[in-house]
Amino acid sequence: MSSSISPLAPTNVPDMPAIAGVKLATAAAGIRYKGRTDVLLAVMDQGTTVAGVFTLSKCPSAPVEWCRAKLGRSKSSRGGLARALVVNSGNANAFTGKSGRQATALTAAIAAKALGCHPHEVFLASTGVIGEPLDATKFDGVLGSLAAQAAPGEWMGAARAIMTTDTFPKVATATVKLGKARVTINGMAKGAGMIAPDMATMLAFVFTDAPIAAGALQSLLKAGVDDTFNAVTVDGDTSTSDTLLAFATGSAAAAGAPRISRAGDPRLKAFTKAFRAVLADLAEQVARDGEGARKLVEIIVEGAVSKKSARRIAMSVANSPLVKTAIAGEDANWGRVVMAVGKAGEPADRDRLSISFNGIRVAKSGARDPSYDEAEVSSAMKNPKIQIRIALGLGKGRDRVLTCDLTKEYVAINGDYRS
Amino acid sequence: MSSSISPLAPTNVPDMPAIAGVKLATAAAGIRYKGRTDVLLAVMDQGTTVAGVFTLSKCPSAPVEWCRAKLGRSKSSRGGLARALVVNSGNANAFTGKSGRQATALTAAIAAKALGCHPHEVFLASTGVIGEPLDATKFDGVLGSLAAQAAPGEWMGAARAIMTTDTFPKVATATVKLGKARVTINGMAKGAGMIAPDMATMLAFVFTDAPIAAGALQSLLKAGVDDTFNAVTVDGDTSTSDTLLAFATGSAAAAGAPRISRAGDPRLKAFTKAFRAVLADLAEQVARDGEGARKLVEIIVEGAVSKKSARRIAMSVANSPLVKTAIAGEDANWGRVVMAVGKAGEPADRDRLSISFNGIRVAKSGARDPSYDEAEVSSAMKNPKIQIRIALGLGKGRDRVLTCDLTKEYVAINGDYRS
Repeated sequence: MSSSISPLAPTNVPDMPAIAGVKLATAAAGIRYKGRTDVLLAVMDQGTTVAGVFTLSKCPSAPVEWCRAKLGRSKSSRGGLARALVVNSGNANAFTGKSGRQATALTAAIAAKALGCHPHEVFLASTGVIGEPLDATKFDGVLGSLAAQAAPGEWMGAARAIMTTDTFPKVATATVKLGKARVTINGMAKGAGMIAPDMATMLAFVFTDAPIAAGALQSLLKAGVDDTFNAVTVDGDTSTSDTLLAFATGSAAAAGAPRISRAGDPRLKAFTKAFRAVLADLAEQVARDGEGARKLVEIIVEGAVSKKSARRIAMSVANSPLVKTAIAGEDANWGRVVMAVGKAGEPADRDRLSISFNGIRVAKSGARDPSYDEAEVSSAMKNPKIQIRIALGLGKGRDRVLTCDLTKEYVAINGDYRS
Repeated sequence: MSSSISPLAPTNVPDMPAIAGVKLATAAAGIRYKGRTDVLLAVMDQGTTVAGVFTLSKCPSAPVEWCRAKLGRSKSSRGGLARALVVNSGNANAFTGKSGRQATALTAAIAAKALGCHPHEVFLASTGVIGEPLDATKFDGVLGSLAAQAAPGEWMGAARAIMTTDTFPKVATATVKLGKARVTINGMAKGAGMIAPDMATMLAFVFTDAPIAAGALQSLLKAGVDDTFNAVTVDGDTSTSDTLLAFATGSAAAAGAPRISRAGDPRLKAFTKAFRAVLADLAEQVARDGEGARKLVEIIVEGAVSKKSARRIAMSVANSPLVKTAIAGEDANWGRVVMAVGKAGEPADRDRLSISFNGIRVAKSGARDPSYDEAEVSSAMKNPKIQIRIALGLGKGRDRVLTCDLTKEYVAINGDYRS
């Protein structure tokens, strides 16, 4: 694991308020790491609704399959209820075959016993090494004492317990009015490597005391993820374990918050915006903690034939090793950007293409911008945040993707650490 | 540019025989590099046929557009004739707008004048930095004296003149019977970075004295490229300049070689095999000289639902930064291989998947192989050639792709050198 904190880590870490109906506790269960917490238990009040989006990998982890099945089950019964979330770091319980499925069932059973709920109300996520059996008996005892210790305010500790190669814990919070009540949204995430979209990337958990029905929560989550977690890539590699879960305890109903049954409910407007902002904040922190990252890179594509086409082009640029290494080298190498646009397979006309780095246009109409001053751009490239704006001049499609540079440290981290 | 030769460079460099009807000469025109050759002129006898495959990039270089147009033109007229090939390194003449098109026209005009042929019989390729105007007036004088100097045997010098970040010149040769005559096939290539398939990758030129009509040569080339150059990737980045041209002088007709008008002609069987072997040899050398490469990696996918599906899965593994860094770290991290299979989006059943590294099975039926001995595999991973065999157990689709590992040197080369 990396020892030093990413130079792109946020300088202001928010105070995380408690959320009525959510209690947290962490422990060092010795899953893989020594001397640090690696298990998180979140306990939710009865009536908490849950929604989730997951990796599109064809080889998902056992916990992803568990959560998908429980969400599917709950749709047909009482509607997406959750009492607990158990997360461990150090072992992803992925590609562990039958023993992996047994481990998820055992973990849920242990948690359910400790909390007096049904196993299908227990949601699970695991992150860490793939292909190693997860010894779920390690949770026996641990989860019982965590259930007893769980307290409202342990958000930073919770975010720390789910880290792997992350160099800083990732949290975000927002408070917003829902009807006459103030409701809170807290989120945490872990990321760092094996980060590419195609669903909620990596592990992220969002909690609110707003009373939102499971179906509405699922719609909110799905809509919110597209331009946040799905618009972030570190290395184009999609984890087998990517999981984003949202929990709504409904406790704010006691303070007068209206019960929301539809995502389109106009009373939910401010909440939806704040919910999306929490997702965007967490997603950006994932890019800021990309393995070995020294630069946060924002790719904006405009003038594409559609938003979808703009997304594909932006992702082609964001995942290009040659673009990413150029940025690591503080080189405004727009020729590589052209290359990455060209290989995306989407409509693009070289002779209409314009490219800017941090607001300085370096290429227009298919050639170098006559006003392009190498020294000015070189100076701009020293900035820790690099914005690449690509104007295609074909249509109105626009999109934005976040990534980071590709450094020798990425290679070092991934050539040494088995994740 | 890298100073030391790739540890994966072939130890036996073939003696390159002359090819009747082909003369070569190189010069240092000072395009970008100092103190090294950077222009190659190949002069072909009258009646030489030509075929080509090119990058699928939507933003191709000016020379790619030039060659495509000339091949297209010749189809409708006298059928794919070439008298000259001019290649320069140091500047790709890509994304250079109108001045790029003028540079190609001027280069062809200068060569045509020097040789007394038509400009549309002159084929062009450029490699190097993108987006910088190419000063074609530098070819004036140079091409004239090259035409005078051109001689049959300068193959290694020619291969050296077209290098950019390559650490060794890439040549291959084969001699084979066609009818009663012996015919020769010589090839050269340059690669190193920005290497991904979707056509002939990078620059490669193949010459033969066999008398093969342009249409038949085009068919041979297209068929030959799929499992050779298109099955190689270094970094998943597709160049705007990728060009593979084949020239057939027909000189062997004088020695009794039959004139071939169809690629399916049974007399061409041995030739086709040898031609493909030359392409395969050059393509493997490109992977062996991948920027920063320390390991040649062969990915074999079997049991996929189709060859196409197998190719996509193999490419997903070959382009995964996490798989490539694990190999650089000599870690048989099959979990990352599972990840890369899973993200390919192709049919795959985790519970049927088997994975071997250099013949040692590490995973089967969706979990770690019980017989998997970490020490034995670790030792095998020290080999400079790594074979990853992935058995999906779904169908009969099979494919093979070559790549290399991802090292800190790749980042260093591409963070410093503007290519």
